[in-house]
Amino acid sequence: MSKRMKISAPATVANLVCGFDILGLALEDPCDIMELECSDEPGLRIRHTDNYALPVVPELNVAGAALLALMEELQEPVGFDLTITKCIKPGSGLGSSAASSAGAVVAANKLLGGRFSGMDLVRFAMNGEKVASGVKHADNITPCIYGGVTLIRAIHPLDIVQLEAPPLHVTVIHPQIEVRTSDARQILRKEVQLKQAIRQWGNIAGLVAGFMKKDYDLISRSLEDVIIEPVRSILIPGFAEVKQRCIDAGALGGGISGSGPSIFMLNRDEETARKVEAIMKDVYEKIGIDYKTYVTKVNMEGVKEIRD
Amino acid sequence: MSKRMKISAPATVANLVCGFDILGLALEDPCDIMELECSDEPGLRIRHTDNYALPVVPELNVAGAALLALMEELQEPVGFDLTITKCIKPGSGLGSSAASSAGAVVAANKLLGGRFSGMDLVRFAMNGEKVASGVKHADNITPCIYGGVTLIRAIHPLDIVQLEAPPLHVTVIHPQIEVRTSDARQILRKEVQLKQAIRQWGNIAGLVAGFMKKDYDLISRSLEDVIIEPVRSILIPGFAEVKQRCIDAGALGGGISGSGPSIFMLNRDEETARKVEAIMKDVYEKIGIDYKTYVTKVNMEGVKEIRD
Repeated sequence: MSKRMKISAPATVANLVCGFDILGLALEDPCDIMELECSDEPGLRIRHTDNYALPVVPELNVAGAALLALMEELQEPVGFDLTITKCIKPGSGLGSSAASSAGAVVAANKLLGGRFSGMDLVRFAMNGEKVASGVKHADNITPCIYGGVTLIRAIHPLDIVQLEAPPLHVTVIHPQIEVRTSDARQILRKEVQLKQAIRQWGNIAGLVAGFMKKDYDLISRSLEDVIIEPVRSILIPGFAEVKQRCIDAGALGGGISGSGPSIFMLNRDEETARKVEAIMKDVYEKIGIDYKTYVTKVNMEGVKEIRD
Repeated sequence: MSKRMKISAPATVANLVCGFDILGLALEDPCDIMELECSDEPGLRIRHTDNYALPVVPELNVAGAALLALMEELQEPVGFDLTITKCIKPGSGLGSSAASSAGAVVAANKLLGGRFSGMDLVRFAMNGEKVASGVKHADNITPCIYGGVTLIRAIHPLDIVQLEAPPLHVTVIHPQIEVRTSDARQILRKEVQLKQAIRQWGNIAGLVAGFMKKDYDLISRSLEDVIIEPVRSILIPGFAEVKQRCIDAGALGGGISGSGPSIFMLNRDEETARKVEAIMKDVYEKIGIDYKTYVTKVNMEGVKEIRD
């Protein structure tokens, strides 16, 4: 059995506009790189090669919390040295914490000969999300582990469904502002109008059917969020303009990635994805906020091993 | 062009547990029989051969209101004689008014050489629903016209999606009590908890995916309604017992058909559907409420012509 494992853990887009807390997809770019090594010395030691100044105490580190959950269930002494090179900026809304948690447990499971199921790994990784945001959500972890577009039908008990989808080109802009996940959760109303909820679940059903039928027009019509986006988008300057102009330029639709501040757009082809990127850049140039953009595709594999 | 048309218009199950206002399916049994005849005398005359004492003034009759909407858009003088033989009892929760409205406009469209689209017909038929319940809903009309399982993603503008599904055997019991659609709407809370809405849209997404993947287990797990059923089921004596015992006996799941009082259960095979029927009968025998049961399948054609 191998003693060392190097993996890449992809960024993910949670919520997918109307699918708050239940839908997510994995991106080919950006992704974190992690190296996990078995050690004769029991326990877990974490090292970061990036400059994000993240905690290295396992209990306070999202990858650490996930790995500790796995190690606890293992019920045999084991030692790991974990080296993390984060490329997904924490707080970007691109599933940075999920990539850390998911990457760590997938790597460990590979080193352990695959004794845990994908569902187990999601469960372990959710402990990392708890450390990051106080909530054990799975809508970034699931696509990060499985790849593609995933549905979390339920959390208790965990019910994960992989959704087929047509090829999608994804444009992402990460405006360099801070939106805390906990703040983004707090501003949501705890009650919603039944009328709006019905409209939302019509869109969710349409989006799922659109993905599975590979019907781009249906996907486009269904990418509407009448509940979360109207509230959260207030935290992201330029959001309305970006969205409208991207859709006018041919994007299928899009919205806030996770709890923001990143904005994503789904597109039929790379040419449109590039046009959309230019529009996004233009908006943030004018506003005067720094940004980073990605033009990428849906990652169909999830966390994967890198062989040097 | 034919001057006379005889059609059957199927009963339908709206909502499908978690899909309130957006999902519906058509049944093979029961169905209404309607005969429509072109006449040289302009206007619309309605005759009922059943004993339900429904109004025959076109504006007050659900089939009449639907036909009048079609005739108005036609913008040329036309005369129709409509004879309705209802087998779907009004107030059963099995889409009785939708069958009347949908049957009438589909028959007229066939006589007119098919000049209107399916979407047009849904639009016309919604005028019948308005007469019946005060609300222009489409979740019975759409499966009645198209057959199969249908999604109404949105009403304004109308967006209809046909969903593939595996073979389903449907058991229905209609306890002979009255639940008025308007009452069933009124008791619903106008606001729902976001937490519950999320659980509901996870189930809706799961149900749509389950139908399209032909995954009976996923369908079964997704047939859960945390918003409407807990409120409405109070109006239906025996509901909780019927549901629990049917699921224990192997039904995939089920719930209130439309706004009730009928209860439906989806099953993998006819044998289970028959077992479920026996359970339903047993519950209402004990309670002492008259009932009518159906063991049937999903109707894949919708309203169809009957050739004598």
